[in-house]
Amino acid sequence: MSKKLIDFYELTMAQVDLSNGFENQWQCFDLYFRNDRREGVEQKGYSISAGLSEIIDYIQNISFSEEELDYLKNNTDLSGKFLKYLRTFKFTGDIYAIPDGTPIFPGEPILTVWAPAPQAKIIETDILNRFNHACSIATKAKRIVDAAHGRSVMEFGARRAQGDTAAINGAKYAYIAGCIGTSCYGTGLSYNVPLLGTMAHSLVTQFPTEYEAFLAYAKEFPDNSVLLVDTYDTLQSGIPNAIRVAKEYLEPMGKRLKGVRLDSGDLAYLSKEARKMLDREGLNDCKIIASNSLDEYTIENMLLKGEAMIDSFGVGENLITSKASPVFGGVYKLVATSNSEDGRVRPKIKVSDDPAKTTVPGRKRLYRFYDKDSGFALGDLVALADEEIPIDNYKLVDHTDPSKYKDLSNYVLRELQVPIFEKGKLVYTVPSIEESREYCRKEFETLYPEIKRFLNPHVYYVDLSVKLAKLKNYMSVKQREKNGKREAI
Amino acid sequence: MSKKLIDFYELTMAQVDLSNGFENQWQCFDLYFRNDRREGVEQKGYSISAGLSEIIDYIQNISFSEEELDYLKNNTDLSGKFLKYLRTFKFTGDIYAIPDGTPIFPGEPILTVWAPAPQAKIIETDILNRFNHACSIATKAKRIVDAAHGRSVMEFGARRAQGDTAAINGAKYAYIAGCIGTSCYGTGLSYNVPLLGTMAHSLVTQFPTEYEAFLAYAKEFPDNSVLLVDTYDTLQSGIPNAIRVAKEYLEPMGKRLKGVRLDSGDLAYLSKEARKMLDREGLNDCKIIASNSLDEYTIENMLLKGEAMIDSFGVGENLITSKASPVFGGVYKLVATSNSEDGRVRPKIKVSDDPAKTTVPGRKRLYRFYDKDSGFALGDLVALADEEIPIDNYKLVDHTDPSKYKDLSNYVLRELQVPIFEKGKLVYTVPSIEESREYCRKEFETLYPEIKRFLNPHVYYVDLSVKLAKLKNYMSVKQREKNGKREAI
Repeated sequence: MSKKLIDFYELTMAQVDLSNGFENQWQCFDLYFRNDRREGVEQKGYSISAGLSEIIDYIQNISFSEEELDYLKNNTDLSGKFLKYLRTFKFTGDIYAIPDGTPIFPGEPILTVWAPAPQAKIIETDILNRFNHACSIATKAKRIVDAAHGRSVMEFGARRAQGDTAAINGAKYAYIAGCIGTSCYGTGLSYNVPLLGTMAHSLVTQFPTEYEAFLAYAKEFPDNSVLLVDTYDTLQSGIPNAIRVAKEYLEPMGKRLKGVRLDSGDLAYLSKEARKMLDREGLNDCKIIASNSLDEYTIENMLLKGEAMIDSFGVGENLITSKASPVFGGVYKLVATSNSEDGRVRPKIKVSDDPAKTTVPGRKRLYRFYDKDSGFALGDLVALADEEIPIDNYKLVDHTDPSKYKDLSNYVLRELQVPIFEKGKLVYTVPSIEESREYCRKEFETLYPEIKRFLNPHVYYVDLSVKLAKLKNYMSVKQREKNGKREAI
Repeated sequence: MSKKLIDFYELTMAQVDLSNGFENQWQCFDLYFRNDRREGVEQKGYSISAGLSEIIDYIQNISFSEEELDYLKNNTDLSGKFLKYLRTFKFTGDIYAIPDGTPIFPGEPILTVWAPAPQAKIIETDILNRFNHACSIATKAKRIVDAAHGRSVMEFGARRAQGDTAAINGAKYAYIAGCIGTSCYGTGLSYNVPLLGTMAHSLVTQFPTEYEAFLAYAKEFPDNSVLLVDTYDTLQSGIPNAIRVAKEYLEPMGKRLKGVRLDSGDLAYLSKEARKMLDREGLNDCKIIASNSLDEYTIENMLLKGEAMIDSFGVGENLITSKASPVFGGVYKLVATSNSEDGRVRPKIKVSDDPAKTTVPGRKRLYRFYDKDSGFALGDLVALADEEIPIDNYKLVDHTDPSKYKDLSNYVLRELQVPIFEKGKLVYTVPSIEESREYCRKEFETLYPEIKRFLNPHVYYVDLSVKLAKLKNYMSVKQREKNGKREAI
């Protein structure tokens, strides 16, 4: 299904690699995101990792067809030698990553590539695109599902998504994050995500009366009738007609009206009135579904303050585009190299005037501390790959403010990145979508409620080990001295 | 390339059509967008129509495979009769649409479908998705290109796009809207859009020195070297090293340094200093390229106030996601039906408490008035399909405020929608991307500068003909009376 994503400069740079002896230099790139960006509020708290299965699919299948090589030959100044290299291109490196559905935080290595220089470059854009898209949608969906507080959320956004993949894969990420299904046929077909839907206003208006439209629908789908009740007037016409179909047609044949959908007006008010009307007629099991530009804030507010009697939310454009925050700022940065001559791993750094943009050098591992009794996540630790982490006590520092720390003792330590590819071979069993969804649900429960707040969430600790922090500091100073010398030239 | 987009309720509703004698009822749907929505400022002024070529591709190829029918049989409660209908499904209706690259305005029928009821329903989501995505990106790109005021704009957003199609097709829409090319390989490969690119910081850091990295790149691409100069220090290191490569390596072999790219710091200031340094060395033809979270506002501001010496802008996430306004609010509404018995066209309306949401009934045509002498677009007129529009004078009313009007006389009238499909057959010659790009450039020149303003643009007249306005009013009143009667029940 996937279409190859490469930024052209990755090809020109890979050619430079080939001509300058970097073909066999292994390079380590970390994918992570920062929290210093002008992102929407969505990215101030937790995010939900996603997109790994697409990345795996891409890496396994990457190759260049003759048609592509012809195109490059005729339209670019890439060399014949380089095109020959592309002809047999495949990925032979290692990839480590955090499984889809895991809550993740700024500054953590989410995915790490360790591969020959040209390979590590060529796969950059596809990895970033899949991860950035998937994470933004899974995160937004999880926030909305969380706001619904046990009520169900349905993904209805296909018509407002940014293209077909955004619709089809977006609905999949929403499902992993806890939506109960989608209206998007392609997501049902490709991933077996449950298909859901009601009816549109045009169906109601094409019949002479609303009642006839409802009756025709109920006759066609007696076990699965959800009637759209706001075409004319929700309380004066829609709900009475829905009740009439339930009483006069469905009940005599032993069936129940499954639901009604409110799509305009004040949803909280209408839901309370509709609930009373339905209950009066014994339709207590008829679900009330609400849609119309919903997001986590509207839903939370309606449930908290309006005491809306809504059982299920249909969410469209705000979820499928992550509207308030449509860009997820994942970056992919060089952190170490190793030449074949000596096999030594050399950490790399890029310093910046903006401290948040200075990279964290070296090959690393990422750990999460869970409280042994409650199971709550206590914080995360980024350490060098060869460090031993004490299993009985640890002083975890908030690296946004190193004077803040907490002493951890009663914990279970878990490494978050797992091996995905080793020497180009897939060594990871990709979980089913249902497994990822259940895993996401469980992992989300390990976060303290304060971390989950939509506005101004409590900061989750992401610490750098003492060794790693020292390395970063040492290399920053060295690099700045070098830059200083350059200035003197 | 396309993946089928259908909302599941279109299938259930189409089944209701089949069971209730609507299979041969022809229905007319208008695709349009409103300006009453909580959209970003992008949609207050002009928009650029796009996505038609994808819609054509979809309509021509739509069919349901055995695999799909099996999936639907096993996972939904659609009837055997309906699945049999889908087995031979094809589009047999008419489609009229505005060509890609045309400036469009709220309230106009951009695309009109006239087809048997189930067909008109089933194609809804795909049409909306392609149009909404394409329009949002083409519009954003045009705004950015317009802000650059003749300087070139390059699309660099693949890594931040919402999936592969968003990256690949998004860059195509950006090109139609006037970008000079893209970094996205897939867009070059699929649509022959020019590929552009420079280099990443990682390439610079993997060499022992910046100079060696620049030299290696220049050796590899002596005709096409654009050097990224901000890895260490733009003015102290990057520009001097770029100059050294130009003077010591390129010039002796008769080559010129093509450009330098600034990617951090104050781009306006750095560009002025860099320009001076380059000019001092006779590198007046070396282009200065800037990137780093640019959009139309930053670009306009840098050029107006900062007098930035930038020749070319590389624009990423803000363009490819239309970040400030990632949802384009196109809707698809039933406006007329015709039964096979009498062939009479019956206009349809849906009234709403929100006047902007009341639909405009009937089959229509859309006209644009151009001044005969200057060529400027004077305003648009939506009329009933069978109306004659006077060719010598017309009183054009601003339908957002019917007391405002202008008397037009010296004009050329052009119908904006053209036939695309007739009885299922493609009757439109799809222009090449280059043709659409040139057409877009020319059409954009017909807009008065006041219409193009980014904030608070002058309102462009979109009038309803007297006949159409009367029909709308008459049907609204009738429908509200009918709703009123319902209330009395």
